[in-house]
Amino acid sequence: MNIHNYINENKERFLEELFNLLRIESVSADPQFKDSVEAAADYLVEQFTLLELDTVEKVKTEGHPIVYAEKIIDKSYPTILVYGHYDVQPADPYELWDSPPFEPIIKDDKIYARGACDDKGQMFMHLKAYEALKNAGEVNFNIKFMIEGEEECGSDNLEKFVTESKEKLASDVIVISDTSIISNKTPSITVGLRGLSYMEVELTGPNRDLHSGTYGGAVNNPINELCKIISSLKNGDGTINIPGFYDDIINHSSKSREKINSAPFDINHFKSHINIGSEYGESGYSTTERIGIRPTLDVNGIWGGYIGDGSKTVLPSKAFAKISMRLVPSQSSKKISKLFSEHLNRLCPNSCSIKIEEHHGGEPVVVNTDTKGYNAAYNAFKEVWGKEPIPTYDGGSIPIVSHFKKELGKDSILMGFGLDEDAIHSPNESFGLYNFYKGIETITAFYLNFAKK
Amino acid sequence: MNIHNYINENKERFLEELFNLLRIESVSADPQFKDSVEAAADYLVEQFTLLELDTVEKVKTEGHPIVYAEKIIDKSYPTILVYGHYDVQPADPYELWDSPPFEPIIKDDKIYARGACDDKGQMFMHLKAYEALKNAGEVNFNIKFMIEGEEECGSDNLEKFVTESKEKLASDVIVISDTSIISNKTPSITVGLRGLSYMEVELTGPNRDLHSGTYGGAVNNPINELCKIISSLKNGDGTINIPGFYDDIINHSSKSREKINSAPFDINHFKSHINIGSEYGESGYSTTERIGIRPTLDVNGIWGGYIGDGSKTVLPSKAFAKISMRLVPSQSSKKISKLFSEHLNRLCPNSCSIKIEEHHGGEPVVVNTDTKGYNAAYNAFKEVWGKEPIPTYDGGSIPIVSHFKKELGKDSILMGFGLDEDAIHSPNESFGLYNFYKGIETITAFYLNFAKK
Repeated sequence: MNIHNYINENKERFLEELFNLLRIESVSADPQFKDSVEAAADYLVEQFTLLELDTVEKVKTEGHPIVYAEKIIDKSYPTILVYGHYDVQPADPYELWDSPPFEPIIKDDKIYARGACDDKGQMFMHLKAYEALKNAGEVNFNIKFMIEGEEECGSDNLEKFVTESKEKLASDVIVISDTSIISNKTPSITVGLRGLSYMEVELTGPNRDLHSGTYGGAVNNPINELCKIISSLKNGDGTINIPGFYDDIINHSSKSREKINSAPFDINHFKSHINIGSEYGESGYSTTERIGIRPTLDVNGIWGGYIGDGSKTVLPSKAFAKISMRLVPSQSSKKISKLFSEHLNRLCPNSCSIKIEEHHGGEPVVVNTDTKGYNAAYNAFKEVWGKEPIPTYDGGSIPIVSHFKKELGKDSILMGFGLDEDAIHSPNESFGLYNFYKGIETITAFYLNFAKK
Repeated sequence: MNIHNYINENKERFLEELFNLLRIESVSADPQFKDSVEAAADYLVEQFTLLELDTVEKVKTEGHPIVYAEKIIDKSYPTILVYGHYDVQPADPYELWDSPPFEPIIKDDKIYARGACDDKGQMFMHLKAYEALKNAGEVNFNIKFMIEGEEECGSDNLEKFVTESKEKLASDVIVISDTSIISNKTPSITVGLRGLSYMEVELTGPNRDLHSGTYGGAVNNPINELCKIISSLKNGDGTINIPGFYDDIINHSSKSREKINSAPFDINHFKSHINIGSEYGESGYSTTERIGIRPTLDVNGIWGGYIGDGSKTVLPSKAFAKISMRLVPSQSSKKISKLFSEHLNRLCPNSCSIKIEEHHGGEPVVVNTDTKGYNAAYNAFKEVWGKEPIPTYDGGSIPIVSHFKKELGKDSILMGFGLDEDAIHSPNESFGLYNFYKGIETITAFYLNFAKK
């Protein structure tokens, strides 16, 4: 049977199998969901077993398990390593969801659920693509699946597993479906990812919360001071004011920038979709460039003092912020975190004390487009979508990609099928049915193209 | 029996009666304590009844009740109106208390409990002062007690009661014990209070929380922007950068400033007590002046984005802050709140939207020292403490004082006995036993001095 027809005839079952996975509350960051994370791993083990792979393992780690499965048909065949994750972001705030995050539904031809796109839906397409090829008797490649449960909380244990399992994970290409295309009319392949430095800052003023009347005006307020520090981290032109921050950036040529800006992008749709009055960012760069090829600094969270209802006249002892920076080649996460810490230590006045902690980070990534893997992805889109995919720079980070490069010596092919409007990490996360089914077909074409002699 | 001896012989009972009041969790701001607030009012009714006053009423309001009691001995006698409050600040964070906030204990000659000083302990001294004079047969004045249960949440219903009860509340002087003295070696009387404008700001960027990778750098982050706005509200010299903010301030003469600065003040004790590396504030003013006679702006609370453990790469939709300004004569709370709102509306960029709400406010107060009431307080301290009290400017606010002046036409005598180190509004609030007993005696002397022909 033809692949396309097979997918079409089994579409309801594919969806139901995905829904079963989406119903499992596998929030990796929150310990109260530990059992659900384990249940999601078990469900994958079951799915891989149904696919009759040679090896299906639930690899224990110090955190959540990694599901590993492989089918070695013939050692002379090329080997494809698929990476994905079965854990999801926390679903809070629950009250902003139109339907419960772990009760998947279809609305307007989209699947709504936490993880629908990131990454359960996208990762699951690979299982169904393999199933379709298996049914057609077209598996002329070896395949390895490595699906982790800690992508949303730092991938620490996966890093260790990769470093310790180089032989087991040996492959000719790594493929990841955890990114987006420009639109359903304009397919694209991600060729760049930003890196990440994620810091937490604690500023202390007086040793206890004070009455703002009795002390206000004569004691520095750590919230006011934290605001001053944060405010000073960006210049008026949107650049970042941390000495040395831009030193290692490899600037794109004007030809490269031209190419990036030629990708279809509708600024009005962008603005109206998230309801902002005007765009914003570094002077001299387009929105596409600001997201794809320029670094940035965002406060991801801030808190301090009285945050309940009504008013309390407190001059607080402490103020906190989570601040992250997205990085571009060849910035180094470790180096940027160090520059950030040093700079904030210098900014802290005598009237306060500061503590800076580093959360997980990741290095920026550029994918070489002159490889067999990239060409296989390119041809797969061309065949299935009837259009040449556009290379794009994604603003997000997949920290494990640079680790793969370092430890396994391979580029990853970033072949995702999401849309920006899928609201990953937000309430009402979605994934288009069109994208799910078209994605499965495109992945089969990628496997076949890559396996070609 | 001599007053001093009576207080001394009944000191254990006085303390136990106060402890019974301190054990009642009368947190007015939090609806879950509603019954406890009522119970505190009932306890006061019981206490006033034991004092054999003519009238003892629990006045119902739309919020918590006001306890009103009076004894009119002779219409030709002067009438003293005592104001105080039986409600307390929330006790959170509970984990920072060395002993439970509603289980009063004595340690190092201090009472530790929420409300020990503010204002149960101080207010209760008036009941015991009256009792001592009654026992000595020296009540040659009429007395009215008005004790409210909403001071810590805005006194809205008391304001209404005062406006509607002018005749009932008619008096020759109002006295309030809800302030501090410089130290137990240096008694003082508060002659100035700062006013208050308390605002809440909500800044909205995108219409939902976004992924900070997919959008970061191209969408304004409302936390970054709120920090920028807050940071811009203070200049480098500590002055407040809101157009018109200083317009109505009546500056003190150099003679007045000299007098203010001559009050004993130990900057090293001040710094070490709250463990700050250096003092802070408006250039050209001393710490005493910064607290007493200069306005200020403090962020009392800030929140937005992800504030849980670990990291979440969110570009948040909203950021919030509670910001209050302490005001000095003749700034107007309403006008300053308006200037603040107008200025912040101007500061909000196109890429965000802003909502500003006003919480309760209060006008600054100056007490005329050339009055019978002030002299009675002055002489009371001189007699009981053997020292002339120093007039001081307190940084806090008692919003109802300007309302009394407006509606009842009387200055309030601010005769408090707390110490700055009593940590009101903070964990481990305390009130010295010395201050409690000496305060009772000083209040009897005030009543007697005021009643003198």
